[in-house]
Amino acid sequence: MQTVVHLLSGDESEQETSLAIAQNLLDDETGSIDDVAIVVQAAGINAVKAGEDNEEQVRELLDSGISVKACSNTLDMMDLDEADLVEGIETVPEGAVEVTRLQSEGYAYVRP
Amino acid sequence: MQTVVHLLSGDESEQETSLAIAQNLLDDETGSIDDVAIVVQAAGINAVKAGEDNEEQVRELLDSGISVKACSNTLDMMDLDEADLVEGIETVPEGAVEVTRLQSEGYAYVRP
Amino acid sequence: MQTVVHLLSGDESEQETSLAIAQNLLDDETGSIDDVAIVVQAAGINAVKAGEDNEEQVRELLDSGISVKACSNTLDMMDLDEADLVEGIETVPEGAVEVTRLQSEGYAYVRP
Repeated sequence: MQTVVHLLSGDESEQETSLAIAQNLLDDETGSIDDVAIVVQAAGINAVKAGEDNEEQVRELLDSGISVKACSNTLDMMDLDEADLVEGIETVPEGAVEVTRLQSEGYAYVRP
Repeated sequence: MQTVVHLLSGDESEQETSLAIAQNLLDDETGSIDDVAIVVQAAGINAVKAGEDNEEQVRELLDSGISVKACSNTLDMMDLDEADLVEGIETVPEGAVEVTRLQSEGYAYVRP
Repeated sequence: MQTVVHLLSGDESEQETSLAIAQNLLDDETGSIDDVAIVVQAAGINAVKAGEDNEEQVRELLDSGISVKACSNTLDMMDLDEADLVEGIETVPEGAVEVTRLQSEGYAYVRP
């Protein structure tokens, strides 16, 4: 099974839950989860900026093989670019399109 | 691909993100999104009332071919009816049933 | 059709909407919904603790045949166990894994 976690909340508690749940999915003892992706957009971008509190946790997720994909539309609107995010984060043109694409490939959706 | 955006938050920022994401899905340059529906219920109803700040944006979404479906259960509880909403919005008996039906037809789910 | 309601918000309004939507899905007049499950985790756990305001409503949902599944990971972190929850609630090892499993079996996802 595969899961996409949609991180678009500006609420810090929901942002923390998003990162924790991504890790929990990967750590699942039954080994039933084959892939986890995090799609980040809107106010969720603040949770994955370089040099912020979550940097170490985001690096660990990336090192564990979780892909983190940031919405370029959002970056443009916030006057940010890929270099402002934790290293290893990819960009996609529009987060919601990526979330749709992943669901069409069979990923389950989780929105903390 | 097809996407249903579930607008049931009372948070104005999440309401704005819901409307913006619906537009972004439709504007997707790859043309991979064939249909977008917005299902509105609970506190989300306030985002699509006639005469409010979002009216012009909601009209533009409707004009673009996005269907906006409001939950009749919610309207009853809020003592509102279809005439209180932006013109062109349809009603469905229960928003969550409509969201379930759309997913069963292959729509991806996005909850801003 | 089948639906899983994901209750992981600490917001009381979103918690109430989660419980109300689960009931509305079951009460659907068209009879199109065959099963409803509520998966509870993170700050959502507070909505289903025994002896709290929602106890009667949660009991009614359980009596109606809705399964309520609480995340053991969350209970451990909050130093709670099954006995602290409304009687009849089951536990699952990790809520997001259960939500993924249900979607892989064809359940639609709703996150109030």
